[in-house]
Amino acid sequence: MYYVGIDLGGTNIAAALVNKNGEIIRKTSVPTFNERPYEEICKDMGMLAKKVIEDEGISLDEVKSIGVGSPGTPDSENGILIYTNNFKNFNNVPVRTEIQKYVDLPVYLENDANCAALGESVAGAGKGYKDCVAITLGTGVGGGVILDGKIVAGSFHGGAEIGHMVIRAGGEQCNCGRKGCFETYSSATALIREARIAAAKYPSCEINKLVNGDLSKMNAKIPFDAAQSGDEVAAEVIDSYIYYLAVGIANCINIFEPQVLVIGGGVCAQKDNLLIPLIGKVKNECYGNADLKTKITIAELGNDAGIIGAAMLGK
Amino acid sequence: MYYVGIDLGGTNIAAALVNKNGEIIRKTSVPTFNERPYEEICKDMGMLAKKVIEDEGISLDEVKSIGVGSPGTPDSENGILIYTNNFKNFNNVPVRTEIQKYVDLPVYLENDANCAALGESVAGAGKGYKDCVAITLGTGVGGGVILDGKIVAGSFHGGAEIGHMVIRAGGEQCNCGRKGCFETYSSATALIREARIAAAKYPSCEINKLVNGDLSKMNAKIPFDAAQSGDEVAAEVIDSYIYYLAVGIANCINIFEPQVLVIGGGVCAQKDNLLIPLIGKVKNECYGNADLKTKITIAELGNDAGIIGAAMLGK
Repeated sequence: MYYVGIDLGGTNIAAALVNKNGEIIRKTSVPTFNERPYEEICKDMGMLAKKVIEDEGISLDEVKSIGVGSPGTPDSENGILIYTNNFKNFNNVPVRTEIQKYVDLPVYLENDANCAALGESVAGAGKGYKDCVAITLGTGVGGGVILDGKIVAGSFHGGAEIGHMVIRAGGEQCNCGRKGCFETYSSATALIREARIAAAKYPSCEINKLVNGDLSKMNAKIPFDAAQSGDEVAAEVIDSYIYYLAVGIANCINIFEPQVLVIGGGVCAQKDNLLIPLIGKVKNECYGNADLKTKITIAELGNDAGIIGAAMLGK
Repeated sequence: MYYVGIDLGGTNIAAALVNKNGEIIRKTSVPTFNERPYEEICKDMGMLAKKVIEDEGISLDEVKSIGVGSPGTPDSENGILIYTNNFKNFNNVPVRTEIQKYVDLPVYLENDANCAALGESVAGAGKGYKDCVAITLGTGVGGGVILDGKIVAGSFHGGAEIGHMVIRAGGEQCNCGRKGCFETYSSATALIREARIAAAKYPSCEINKLVNGDLSKMNAKIPFDAAQSGDEVAAEVIDSYIYYLAVGIANCINIFEPQVLVIGGGVCAQKDNLLIPLIGKVKNECYGNADLKTKITIAELGNDAGIIGAAMLGK
């Protein structure tokens, strides 16, 4: 049996044919042109689904369902995208029925961060575990929670906002309106902000040298590189970044105590430079200094996690 | 059909016969004498279960199961109490098989805070909702999470430790080893601590008058009473207390987005004096300033929540 996953992005719409193990068999995409009427965008989703099925030369009977991962707030029960700020003209869009005009298959709809978590839990770093929390460190901090193999989406389609858990009340201002959210300390954006502050404060530090004094060139890799070269200023920036990341992750463990906690996003390219000190700090933060039973690991599927998870919605 | 709930406490062991609506029909208890061998304590649980059934004059066929709510870390799957620091000689106790020596019924075992959450969700303030988070403000802050009618206990029996979610990194020292846990700001203990600090700092404030200058007489009601009488120092203590409570509750909503969030514990005797400002502050903390969809309300079952929830484990 096969499954179709669709990743509805602001730039591209991608569809993939996925097998029951969560492996991508075939994938294709078109630009989103996100100012178009929703009917056109949904038509593209339907046609792309059809295309990956037909190009593989299989019949509709061999495909169980189509799953769509979308930004914003989907009403999964009714297959309606209630709201997303990534598209114009996208309020209360009946995604399920629109797609079914072109392909007669069950259509599931879920938030893209939740899909990514499901993807990692089915076919990535969380494979083999029924309880998995996935955290993505990017522009913000995304989160997804899988318990007993199922997405925990909240009663009103807006839960698992792990990035908007306050870990330092009264701290950094977050875009969401709160102060001190996990995201304001642990996103790649936060690391870049702190690296810039340090570089401006200590002009002779290695971070500043690596951007040739041009703070606009800062990225999340630079403070790691500077720290690796022995720079103390950079080491402190990284140490503080990992401390807050550990606080948020320990919170997730105290709350969900999953079998596995998967971290993804560009920062994770650092692999053991991030993971080893992180696990050390999480152990310090663990409840009652108990053994850390949750496995903390790095995501394996990269950008495919979302589309694979979307496909697996129907599994 | 009936259910037996057992509350294994450090002081008393209580058993209750509960109907399918979660109403207590009959209840009895004996002192725990918690230094006794586990076989004796488990025998008491079994005999108490038998007693409430027999005293009601019903047959064993009419009782579906026995549920035990215990402190510590129970292995619910295997019916074993792995660890609790409330009893001597209680490591890896086979509670299920011990009780079944005296009563031939299925025996379920669960953490008492989780049982209290289940009780409120079945028969208390969370009745009618399948997703419910319960928070108890007492000596510490206890938590329980019910999703789709089922307890979220963590993969290793140690989840839902909501009180040990850090909300202010680097803040107040917690008994658990972390700094800035929800519990260190929102427990009754935390309120008493802050009221004492304020009373010592402002000797002429109403809080200090209400304890006649004897800070050992402080309790969680006094700062509320002082604030009600118009005392500004007390009003600030209460305002700060409710702010941190709102931060922790908003975190729970951003993470779980339950239909209902139930708060219990002695502090909740304040009812609207607590609830109205609390809801106001939670609204300010809500993700994207969205409407607050989760109903926040006060627990209804008091100390019976745990025993009712224990009974409902078998439902």
